[in-house]
Amino acid sequence: MVGGGSGAFIGAVHRIAARMDGEFQLVAGALSSTPEKSHASAQALGLARSYDDFSAMARAEARRKDGIEAVAIVTPNHMHAGPAIEFLKRGIHVICDKPLTATMAEAKKLAKVAERSNALFILTHNYTAHPMVRQARAMVAAGEIGRLRLVQVEYVQEWLTQDAEHHGSKQAEWRTDPARSGAGGAIGDIGTHAYNLACFVSGQTPEALAADLSSFVEGRPLDDNAHVLLRFPGGAKGMLWASQVAPGNENLLRLRLYGDKGGLEWEQEDPNRLWFTRFGEPRQLFTRNGAGSWPEAARVSRVPPGHPEGYLEAFATIYAEAARAIRAHQRGETVPEGTTYPTLADGLAGMRFIAACVASSKRNAAWIAP
Amino acid sequence: MVGGGSGAFIGAVHRIAARMDGEFQLVAGALSSTPEKSHASAQALGLARSYDDFSAMARAEARRKDGIEAVAIVTPNHMHAGPAIEFLKRGIHVICDKPLTATMAEAKKLAKVAERSNALFILTHNYTAHPMVRQARAMVAAGEIGRLRLVQVEYVQEWLTQDAEHHGSKQAEWRTDPARSGAGGAIGDIGTHAYNLACFVSGQTPEALAADLSSFVEGRPLDDNAHVLLRFPGGAKGMLWASQVAPGNENLLRLRLYGDKGGLEWEQEDPNRLWFTRFGEPRQLFTRNGAGSWPEAARVSRVPPGHPEGYLEAFATIYAEAARAIRAHQRGETVPEGTTYPTLADGLAGMRFIAACVASSKRNAAWIAP
Amino acid sequence: MVGGGSGAFIGAVHRIAARMDGEFQLVAGALSSTPEKSHASAQALGLARSYDDFSAMARAEARRKDGIEAVAIVTPNHMHAGPAIEFLKRGIHVICDKPLTATMAEAKKLAKVAERSNALFILTHNYTAHPMVRQARAMVAAGEIGRLRLVQVEYVQEWLTQDAEHHGSKQAEWRTDPARSGAGGAIGDIGTHAYNLACFVSGQTPEALAADLSSFVEGRPLDDNAHVLLRFPGGAKGMLWASQVAPGNENLLRLRLYGDKGGLEWEQEDPNRLWFTRFGEPRQLFTRNGAGSWPEAARVSRVPPGHPEGYLEAFATIYAEAARAIRAHQRGETVPEGTTYPTLADGLAGMRFIAACVASSKRNAAWIAP
Amino acid sequence: MVGGGSGAFIGAVHRIAARMDGEFQLVAGALSSTPEKSHASAQALGLARSYDDFSAMARAEARRKDGIEAVAIVTPNHMHAGPAIEFLKRGIHVICDKPLTATMAEAKKLAKVAERSNALFILTHNYTAHPMVRQARAMVAAGEIGRLRLVQVEYVQEWLTQDAEHHGSKQAEWRTDPARSGAGGAIGDIGTHAYNLACFVSGQTPEALAADLSSFVEGRPLDDNAHVLLRFPGGAKGMLWASQVAPGNENLLRLRLYGDKGGLEWEQEDPNRLWFTRFGEPRQLFTRNGAGSWPEAARVSRVPPGHPEGYLEAFATIYAEAARAIRAHQRGETVPEGTTYPTLADGLAGMRFIAACVASSKRNAAWIAP
Repeated sequence: MVGGGSGAFIGAVHRIAARMDGEFQLVAGALSSTPEKSHASAQALGLARSYDDFSAMARAEARRKDGIEAVAIVTPNHMHAGPAIEFLKRGIHVICDKPLTATMAEAKKLAKVAERSNALFILTHNYTAHPMVRQARAMVAAGEIGRLRLVQVEYVQEWLTQDAEHHGSKQAEWRTDPARSGAGGAIGDIGTHAYNLACFVSGQTPEALAADLSSFVEGRPLDDNAHVLLRFPGGAKGMLWASQVAPGNENLLRLRLYGDKGGLEWEQEDPNRLWFTRFGEPRQLFTRNGAGSWPEAARVSRVPPGHPEGYLEAFATIYAEAARAIRAHQRGETVPEGTTYPTLADGLAGMRFIAACVASSKRNAAWIAP
Repeated sequence: MVGGGSGAFIGAVHRIAARMDGEFQLVAGALSSTPEKSHASAQALGLARSYDDFSAMARAEARRKDGIEAVAIVTPNHMHAGPAIEFLKRGIHVICDKPLTATMAEAKKLAKVAERSNALFILTHNYTAHPMVRQARAMVAAGEIGRLRLVQVEYVQEWLTQDAEHHGSKQAEWRTDPARSGAGGAIGDIGTHAYNLACFVSGQTPEALAADLSSFVEGRPLDDNAHVLLRFPGGAKGMLWASQVAPGNENLLRLRLYGDKGGLEWEQEDPNRLWFTRFGEPRQLFTRNGAGSWPEAARVSRVPPGHPEGYLEAFATIYAEAARAIRAHQRGETVPEGTTYPTLADGLAGMRFIAACVASSKRNAAWIAP
Repeated sequence: MVGGGSGAFIGAVHRIAARMDGEFQLVAGALSSTPEKSHASAQALGLARSYDDFSAMARAEARRKDGIEAVAIVTPNHMHAGPAIEFLKRGIHVICDKPLTATMAEAKKLAKVAERSNALFILTHNYTAHPMVRQARAMVAAGEIGRLRLVQVEYVQEWLTQDAEHHGSKQAEWRTDPARSGAGGAIGDIGTHAYNLACFVSGQTPEALAADLSSFVEGRPLDDNAHVLLRFPGGAKGMLWASQVAPGNENLLRLRLYGDKGGLEWEQEDPNRLWFTRFGEPRQLFTRNGAGSWPEAARVSRVPPGHPEGYLEAFATIYAEAARAIRAHQRGETVPEGTTYPTLADGLAGMRFIAACVASSKRNAAWIAP
Repeated sequence: MVGGGSGAFIGAVHRIAARMDGEFQLVAGALSSTPEKSHASAQALGLARSYDDFSAMARAEARRKDGIEAVAIVTPNHMHAGPAIEFLKRGIHVICDKPLTATMAEAKKLAKVAERSNALFILTHNYTAHPMVRQARAMVAAGEIGRLRLVQVEYVQEWLTQDAEHHGSKQAEWRTDPARSGAGGAIGDIGTHAYNLACFVSGQTPEALAADLSSFVEGRPLDDNAHVLLRFPGGAKGMLWASQVAPGNENLLRLRLYGDKGGLEWEQEDPNRLWFTRFGEPRQLFTRNGAGSWPEAARVSRVPPGHPEGYLEAFATIYAEAARAIRAHQRGETVPEGTTYPTLADGLAGMRFIAACVASSKRNAAWIAP
């Protein structure tokens, strides 16, 4: 693991997720920005091998016979590309947090290395791993809602309503800092999740967007709210709203898709349920592993219906899917059918989305291709 | 009553609403487009005085000692201005369905007459009369959510998902017909409700909007979906989504307002509840007439908490408010404090909103002042 | 109207309900316990004919050519039988609030008179008039849930959590007073509603019950909480919980029925929805007048789906059904098919239920036939 | 691990739970009823040490220097006591699934051994480990709802609506078999969970209960539905409903507590939320780790508010609490303050509850002390 030292939120999430299905064990790390902090965090976690920095780690692990199979990169955005490149170059699989990088230049550099590497690159757009998200995607693909018309997606939080970045929140500090986060604030942190989810489930990518980004907290250099209109190649249209200044919303990620035959609605805070309406019939409530559950959902479920799975389970499924892909790769086989995880292509699409939103907003919400 | 003959939806609603609080009795009407249909409908309703058309009615009622106090105009949009002008000219109060008229020209003409008339003009933007909407407005005005930042409003239906206008739905026929509805389809029918509600509760009117209107059903001349970005003078921003092609949504009108201190959320399909969050505290659920209910809500409630009031009750409150204003007017008094109803100004704002949406959409979602 | 003077809750409800569908006009009344109060209330309501007391009213109205068709009795329970008998004797139809009477003796006396009277007796168990309750009943009757096994019903309020009866609440005073309410507190006031609803929808009446009644507020002579077990003749079982001391519950009336093929769930605070599950299939959400709505629901709906109807609409439907029955009766015809309203038999069943609960509770929750 | 071979539901749950917080590693097992099946399952799981049966395992592991610290017993109920006794006798800590045993005789035997053993006994009443359940318990203890009056608890499922036990469901087979499950069907399987949860949160144990058990599916020897009335020493009363034949309910475990000052409501299918009402104030919605979250909830949370934790996380918390207790025990220290897990006493209380329900039901729902 690179990053994820004490106090980090997402590092702990990755560790639990990696462990949950018993596919990975954490054995080595360069957990923090200085050797001292790294070793202290490593000791606290009982880590076998602690390195001064990610370069040392990549070199050493690549040389070991029992070196790591894969590295999890859970640093702030500006520290994704560097480590990812080091490990990919040495054939070590990379599981990397989103967004892909802080800048498009880094993203392109990383992409070049990844393309030449024999190792896999997995991006943790974790929300795509919820069983009911998988079912929604399968239902859209199977034509259950007919021809797609509308994509309404929103990712709404409240935690940056005030200037937490000046009141001791480390999370808030780096996420509102262009040097560490890149050009996108809310649009990068959560907008990319919303965008990725919408594309994943709908099976479509917008051809144009118009964005109005705002920074409501005085002095905040990055957007904390984004209003985006979307247009898809096949004629569908959409709205994307990402906000971190909406009191009353902890982590509302809601996706609604409508076609000429039906509609689908899903919310991250209630992830075991999926509303489906066939136009002209009563609404139906599909549940994870419940009656009528589709195989795509059942495949990534762990417990029976009514026993809620949550955020960590979906995150763990990304790791489980990564494990399946890596095992197959190690055996020289193709990835088993159904195995699904976000890739470099998704990461690049996310970067183009951020760039397009920022550019559109600067031009007064002009239409731009992402 | 003008309009509201057999088969009409909104005419029946007005009749129940007028009756509910015992303030009005229906005694006269020109209920349909031909004298025959009008008289047949009048007979079915047991109406005392049935007229061939609205002009005859206006003339005759104005002459009677016991002539009507007020007329309800519940015709399709293109038939609002004509009757309204006739009655206003004769000093008869007008309670008119929304949107104000089919065209801006009609609206201006009507406005001129109304300004010179001694009679009142009440527009039935009924959703503003829900007790919890009243409370939300009062809470915003009292600073409970702080400085306004975000206005998210959506009015979403499913009933025009297919071309009902060619399959026998009279409602669908005129609402998708520019000659009878005007330039706006969904944006006129329900978008104006959403816009009016957002302005009413927030106490603010956008200074600019960017709209992307769509007509998803082939051959439909008016929009059935509208995506609109909003900008308010004080720096707040918003999104408005109006759709009649979203399967699974019967009549979802949802308003969410966020400021730097808190947030408010309300839904028309669950109208007796209002979510309020003071940033940093647990969410609170205010209920109509329940614990902590504000006087502005209690004032327009009829039954105790937990006994749901609905669509008709709010509609009836518009009539009750109109009655209070008319009684005061008759006594030469000022309207009692607190009495609140949508006026000609709201109607004109709605017309400007429709026009701006249509113009913006034609210019590829350019920003336009409504 | 008998009762319903100023300050009364249910009188106002009856007046709105009677008016809503335009079938009744309030023209006469003995509105309060003294002539002075009665006349003052009558004046405030603009009532044409105000009487000193119900006897005077019954005599006078029966003699008038334009005398009232029906009387609404909305007094406290101990004042139901007296007026009902007076009016029934004179052939005036009676619409009476529940429970039937304060004592079983009164109930029997009333029943005898009613049986001999040519006039109709309608009891306002208003919750049976909700469209989705009607649909639920029809679905059970049609075998949609199979053979009935479980009847879970609860009616839960919070308003008597503290001793409101000693702090100025007139409602609380008489409802906790055995002299005016009878032997049942919560069990009479709301338990009878729950019981009636359960029987109405299930189509079955329990053959035995075991009740544990409590009075949690010190010094309160009547129960404010009732826990009841039910057994039905066909082998079904159930639970009934009625409480007025459950903080957080305004007026939660919830009915859940399960059979060997499916289940149905309905809640009064969200009355436009009905959950239906066919065992082995995804849950379905039926809505009032929505897709898949049954004719029994559509028959008593006023507005389209998504436009919520509420408490007053259901109450008004009891009046509308009464009107249909009375009109038919006046024409010497049978009541139109489908017309449904609670009768004297329901009232007597409610009285037996109260008596059985009280008796069972005194015998430590022994099984007793209601 | 003892039990949990291929096809078992709860064994897999225990394995994930044990792994989630990195406190335990699965190294040894006697996973099934025959040596062949056991070894096959062990191989599938990649288990280091597989034993023919639990006795062999207990003996061997107790002798090893690197023997297991604790054993998880996840067999059907009739196979709890035997293994638990073997391991406890040898000083190996036991983490055992509920209910404690199949018979009271076994339970007493186990209790004697456990009392003499130096090892800990942890019962996996997992629902007590949900953060919001912990908060609810703390709020009750702190007097937030005042003096307790009402305890309404229900645990409702649908999976045994039909005779799944004769259609290939192994789960259904043993859970409806008295030889393997004991005297309680639904009352043992899920009723004990409901009972334990109610006692845990309320801080009280009933002094009497009256139970009406049913077996709705023909030929099923154990109850599949239980209706139970409860009486608590301090005067509080309650209802417990456990059912496995209620179509539409996957795993509804709902607890509602009311006192003279307020109320609390929690549902297992929406476990990150806790409704709290202070009588006379608007309802409040507490969320896991959200604004106003109590330290007792935060202590056992892993991720920020809005990122749902679920069934497995709560289960894992039982393991994490067990780990804390075992580590302290190993160091000869007292268990750290706040560490909370269900013990042998809870298991015995559960057995008494089952026995009392069965006895009461046989005596026509007579009151019996559990």
